[in-house]
Amino acid sequence: MQKFFEKVDQNLNRMVQEVIEICRQPSIAAQNIGMIETADMIVAKMNLLGIKTQKMPVENGNPVIYGEITGASDKTVLFYDHYDVQPPEPLDQWISPPFEPEIRDGKIFARGISDNKGPLYTRLHAIETIMELTSNLPVNVKFLIEGEEEIGSPNLESFVKAHKELLKADVCVWENAHKAEDDHPVIRLGNKGMLYVELRVKAANTDYHSRFAPIIPNAAWRLIWALGTLKDANENILIKGFYDRIRPIPQEEYDALGAMAGQEEKIKKRAQIKELLNGVEGVEFANKFLNGPTCTVCGLSSGYTGQGSKTVLPCYAMAKLDFRMVVGQDPHEILTLLRKHLDEHGFTDIEIHPHSMAKPSKTPITDPVVKIAVEAGQLVYDKSFIIEPCAAGTGPRYVFSDWTNMPIIGIGPGYPGALNHAPNENLVIRDYCQAVKHIIAFLYKMAE
Amino acid sequence: MQKFFEKVDQNLNRMVQEVIEICRQPSIAAQNIGMIETADMIVAKMNLLGIKTQKMPVENGNPVIYGEITGASDKTVLFYDHYDVQPPEPLDQWISPPFEPEIRDGKIFARGISDNKGPLYTRLHAIETIMELTSNLPVNVKFLIEGEEEIGSPNLESFVKAHKELLKADVCVWENAHKAEDDHPVIRLGNKGMLYVELRVKAANTDYHSRFAPIIPNAAWRLIWALGTLKDANENILIKGFYDRIRPIPQEEYDALGAMAGQEEKIKKRAQIKELLNGVEGVEFANKFLNGPTCTVCGLSSGYTGQGSKTVLPCYAMAKLDFRMVVGQDPHEILTLLRKHLDEHGFTDIEIHPHSMAKPSKTPITDPVVKIAVEAGQLVYDKSFIIEPCAAGTGPRYVFSDWTNMPIIGIGPGYPGALNHAPNENLVIRDYCQAVKHIIAFLYKMAE
Repeated sequence: MQKFFEKVDQNLNRMVQEVIEICRQPSIAAQNIGMIETADMIVAKMNLLGIKTQKMPVENGNPVIYGEITGASDKTVLFYDHYDVQPPEPLDQWISPPFEPEIRDGKIFARGISDNKGPLYTRLHAIETIMELTSNLPVNVKFLIEGEEEIGSPNLESFVKAHKELLKADVCVWENAHKAEDDHPVIRLGNKGMLYVELRVKAANTDYHSRFAPIIPNAAWRLIWALGTLKDANENILIKGFYDRIRPIPQEEYDALGAMAGQEEKIKKRAQIKELLNGVEGVEFANKFLNGPTCTVCGLSSGYTGQGSKTVLPCYAMAKLDFRMVVGQDPHEILTLLRKHLDEHGFTDIEIHPHSMAKPSKTPITDPVVKIAVEAGQLVYDKSFIIEPCAAGTGPRYVFSDWTNMPIIGIGPGYPGALNHAPNENLVIRDYCQAVKHIIAFLYKMAE
Repeated sequence: MQKFFEKVDQNLNRMVQEVIEICRQPSIAAQNIGMIETADMIVAKMNLLGIKTQKMPVENGNPVIYGEITGASDKTVLFYDHYDVQPPEPLDQWISPPFEPEIRDGKIFARGISDNKGPLYTRLHAIETIMELTSNLPVNVKFLIEGEEEIGSPNLESFVKAHKELLKADVCVWENAHKAEDDHPVIRLGNKGMLYVELRVKAANTDYHSRFAPIIPNAAWRLIWALGTLKDANENILIKGFYDRIRPIPQEEYDALGAMAGQEEKIKKRAQIKELLNGVEGVEFANKFLNGPTCTVCGLSSGYTGQGSKTVLPCYAMAKLDFRMVVGQDPHEILTLLRKHLDEHGFTDIEIHPHSMAKPSKTPITDPVVKIAVEAGQLVYDKSFIIEPCAAGTGPRYVFSDWTNMPIIGIGPGYPGALNHAPNENLVIRDYCQAVKHIIAFLYKMAE
């Protein structure tokens, strides 16, 4: 490994310049800015490395970049990444402009540098390094790089379903991973699922002066009462059947959570709160965080919300809710249970407008690739790995686990200060260097 | 009376022109526009009528116009009115500009024409008519015309308290009244009180990605749960002690409500609702509407409320609440009870920011002035009077009833389509004419 690692160190400046160039090119899927230009730059780079790469069209969507290169063994690694980025707004909060990358304090600042152009380029630079020294990869490698991740991957499932033979591999390496608060590298094995809905209620034809409150229904109250039936103040979700399909956590997974214990202190300090919900600490904190399904009010709006007072009886009220769910639960079923719950509690007037759904997905901690990824990482990182059996967040892993049935592991250069989706998104150059080395080691370990 | 009424009919066009002129002059207290100019115009008009009138300064506020004129008897009538108007926004919804009055369909359209410059001028034109024909009023008349009603009368109470001897009278005629939906004239004898508060909760230092929902408190949920303890879905207010000081409705008042029965059908039709809250109808509708205290969510805001979805865990949530209360209840006490209630239910984190308070006030339906006002009105209106023992809305009547202890009755030219506070505020010219006559007849009846 040492010769590869030295080569990475030698070429690091050039690698950083290259990732800066791709970040200079906007690719904002939500605003349809620069998508094809970006895809073409990446396709060119990949072909230059000997990866047979093409843009595959997606109906009414941004093309998928698909690439493959044959290696020395019969093992195949599939990399999932994306070339689109979040919109950069609010622009005035960026210290340097989002698409004019700048290096400060050993970090690269640019929109997309952490999510996901930087991580994508760690894969490409790993392959470049191996090819430079050996002209032959230890394993077959495939790439699926979509251009719609930041708008909810609307076409990913149908693409994967249509190309499941093409995408066959022994492991899918997920787009990124994030170091823990204490610099321990993390391997993530799953995502929670999600159901995002908007609840709306219209109680009368228009707003009224609030003197009519004794006789005309108030949409805000209808919504408050309905929401109040969904979850109690001890965080128990009260929708009948909500928890029914949750399976017990395997002991190995529960044991792995021990490595996260202690992080809760940093979270409490950062959030300036005395204790976490229900006072969880230690392993119980980790278990709740990663394995707890949720029902979250993300937004709430009704009536007059400006300065001062307005005596108005609101005719309309709206709440945005996300449910995060764990393996066993299904967003379609939760949606049905939610409608049933509202109806049974007398809230037939509350409309449900679904925004998005994603199923949960989890690779068993006992899968052999997990050990391989850790052993590869131990050649690079001087701190021990934390294995997160499931991320607290959501992502389209389920598309791959549902249609290809391969293990999926997340490794990459992210860190807790990366500010993904926010102004001043950044990546630590040292983390970039380590991630390139980790990928190289992982590809060789996969071939063993 | 006939000669006076004929005189009013003769002079009606000139009266309308004069009220149009005063409406052409903006007097927006909230924006401090045209206040002194308007006051000066009114003072000049009143002095011209022989009413000894002056602007009395108010510290950090708009001056009060005070006027008095001696009449033939020892009875005194105090008129309470105001010369400020609501801001005219949204301007684009006015058919004719708010300060360029226009007559259409027998109605005058202008900001302030109904609230309260039109009603004020019915008083002045009544006096003008009497003086023209007799040079002597039947009773003493006093005027208190404030310039801050539309911003909550912040200085009215201290003014009345400081000048209670000066303001002494046998009756206070309130700024306006509104005909019922079916054109029956209305006399209003009271106002509900009000406590307007903003509830605020901060649950963490900043918003978080909603993946933190299992462990970091959510301000929106805190607020929803807190609000849910205040009122149940059957409209029962659950604050301990809230109803304790409410006195039973006197039988005469309950009987008077019968005249309002049937109006609920028009309200339901207008609001496009199948039934009123708790299905009230007939006298029970009227009783609930006018005598029911309320707890109303006027506004609700937390997290992301824009288009589409954002998976955010809101750190801040806000609700605006108004409590309308009836005679016996006190806004200061309700505020104390609310704080106690939230604390006892575990919501010490919910801050209460009071915006405004007004006490309830009611003149007994058995007071002799009520009969006088009705008898005077029967000389003018061809439909029978509806006596509302209390308005559903709030106003500063309590200032007068607390500090002067005189009966207060509302009579005037308003009607349900007047659009007070809204674009296209208007007054029916025929209603204006009737109100002038009603005031004339009332002054004479008071002297009998």
